[in-house]
Amino acid sequence: MSGSRSRLFGRVALLGTGLMGGSLGMAIRECTLAEEVVGYDRDSETLATALERGAVDRISNCPEKAVEGAELVILAVPIKLCGKLVESCAPHFMPGAVITDLGSTKQFLVEELSGIIPDDVIYIGGHPMTGSEESGIEAADPALLENAIYVLTPDGSKPEEQWRRLVHLIEGIGAQPLIISPAEHDRIVALVSHLPHLAAVTLVKVAAENEKKEMVQTLAAGGFRDTTRIAMGNPEVWRDICSTNREAISVLLTRYLHELENMRRMIEDGMEEEMAATLDRARSFRRRIPFRSRGILPELFDIIVLVKDTPGTIGRIASIVGEAGFNIAEVEILHVREEEGGSIRLGFRQKEQRDGALAVLKEQGYRVHRR
Amino acid sequence: MSGSRSRLFGRVALLGTGLMGGSLGMAIRECTLAEEVVGYDRDSETLATALERGAVDRISNCPEKAVEGAELVILAVPIKLCGKLVESCAPHFMPGAVITDLGSTKQFLVEELSGIIPDDVIYIGGHPMTGSEESGIEAADPALLENAIYVLTPDGSKPEEQWRRLVHLIEGIGAQPLIISPAEHDRIVALVSHLPHLAAVTLVKVAAENEKKEMVQTLAAGGFRDTTRIAMGNPEVWRDICSTNREAISVLLTRYLHELENMRRMIEDGMEEEMAATLDRARSFRRRIPFRSRGILPELFDIIVLVKDTPGTIGRIASIVGEAGFNIAEVEILHVREEEGGSIRLGFRQKEQRDGALAVLKEQGYRVHRR
Repeated sequence: MSGSRSRLFGRVALLGTGLMGGSLGMAIRECTLAEEVVGYDRDSETLATALERGAVDRISNCPEKAVEGAELVILAVPIKLCGKLVESCAPHFMPGAVITDLGSTKQFLVEELSGIIPDDVIYIGGHPMTGSEESGIEAADPALLENAIYVLTPDGSKPEEQWRRLVHLIEGIGAQPLIISPAEHDRIVALVSHLPHLAAVTLVKVAAENEKKEMVQTLAAGGFRDTTRIAMGNPEVWRDICSTNREAISVLLTRYLHELENMRRMIEDGMEEEMAATLDRARSFRRRIPFRSRGILPELFDIIVLVKDTPGTIGRIASIVGEAGFNIAEVEILHVREEEGGSIRLGFRQKEQRDGALAVLKEQGYRVHRR
Repeated sequence: MSGSRSRLFGRVALLGTGLMGGSLGMAIRECTLAEEVVGYDRDSETLATALERGAVDRISNCPEKAVEGAELVILAVPIKLCGKLVESCAPHFMPGAVITDLGSTKQFLVEELSGIIPDDVIYIGGHPMTGSEESGIEAADPALLENAIYVLTPDGSKPEEQWRRLVHLIEGIGAQPLIISPAEHDRIVALVSHLPHLAAVTLVKVAAENEKKEMVQTLAAGGFRDTTRIAMGNPEVWRDICSTNREAISVLLTRYLHELENMRRMIEDGMEEEMAATLDRARSFRRRIPFRSRGILPELFDIIVLVKDTPGTIGRIASIVGEAGFNIAEVEILHVREEEGGSIRLGFRQKEQRDGALAVLKEQGYRVHRR
């Protein structure tokens, strides 16, 4: 990020200054991609914090005022509130303005806004595929958007030059635009995000009903914790995702139920070879899903260090590597016993860095190998 | 670990010198808990490597010879091979010998061995709840067992003093013994390990059947990767787990299917309040599952550092903290965008260390807070 980029938009109206809105506002301002960002939030404390934290240049207590003269309007409120907000702001949109949102489902809003959005503005759905375990303006951070995939779902009725500026803005903040249709977006996220979420929530529900709660918690090993981590997501957000992507989720849940029935049948009937083949195919597919998204980030070069569970190991390893002049781009505790030590993956941006770090750790007596 | 512990056993026979057997052999030898460890493996290359890597003191090409004069016999072969192995070794067991195994399911072996095991030896099932993403003697590491929960399932027919030595051995290698019945073990692991595994494998199966494979891989975000990581487990091991814990798994799969049907119904019928309540209860329960197992490891004191995705950040943070004299016990990349940066959790063994690290990072301009 640098301050030397040309401004893509004059005024930007940011309606909603929570985690995602705030992060986007900060990124736009840091990269000077707009002349000014005007913020609105129904919560006046959130709005004041957004100003204080530099997510907006100035604030407005009224969304209709905030959108006046804005070349870009960003709807950063819960998806079910977007319709009403657009309805009341519609008479105040500047002709030619670009309207976008940050919702997790897309087809719902396309339908919701179809009768509301004026003909002389351009609506393009957006979904930055990023997030945080935390929420609210306090956790907002422009780094959230760096390298994130940022889906845009133009409906095809508007010529590309009309929304090209939004693509440039996304590239400008360091995210990666991906253009797909609203319906396709919804089907894919139902598969890679919504179905896993419901599978995890249901696992937790089954575990929670066990009478031996203490024992369950003691023995809940890495596998359970990994598999159910997403079940800690915000209930209201996920309720709305379920209700605004009902159809795609329902189709996949049906499919999932069917496949689980097959699994149960294989187990009950002792179909061991079929089971082994199923497990083997799943492993093969899962292994092909890269550590990081394809084509989005440069490939990293990895080493694995086997470590004992003694205090300071990770710090010592990082210091040895850092002092030798090699930059660790990533650290991942591998799943020996999740957070309890075991082996550590270190990722480097260059092969030479990887090889250098490998050599220096070997010299120091660590058991280390390339991944 | 130190070499000053008293020897608990004379000769130990280690039948199977793969990842788990090898790791246990190394740990016993490092801690000098036995006079000698005699190794056997049906694969002669594995056996030679086990000797070379110090997992055993000497090797034997025949299990019947290996168990002769052994006070402790460790069955570290795939669970379905244990029965045959014990059958052929039975006449050679020393009276009073303790026989144990390392299998992931316990009731199956109790039944399998009930007619085979001689009356004058003591069989106690064992399950060290640890593992590695890798397999084989090459990946064996005594650190795998440190702090791991090590379940023992004595059947109650033998007085405790007869198997107390095995408990001491487990404590001696730094693992944490946990005594439960075979049936209870199997029910709990079906819940915290086997059901999540099958849920993950089935998610991957559904994803693998999607025609837009490239898109699925591109958009498979942190949630999907987390939830399905365990689907990369060894297919043969998991086939055997399914077949040796059939009943408990089947009960839980039925329960899981029922709850998923409920989820689908709530979504299809638009039962939004019920859905929000379900999601909220799951979050509450999941949040109560600690980062690390209860009572096994000392509690850590955590800080969260918000970081930009720039090269070397993790190394720099670790160096700053390390140079200031504070020992990082754990690093965890939190799930902003999984391995792509975001926020990092650092864990410390003492509160003072945590507070010191927090202060020094703040001084250096990092955005950091206590968890």
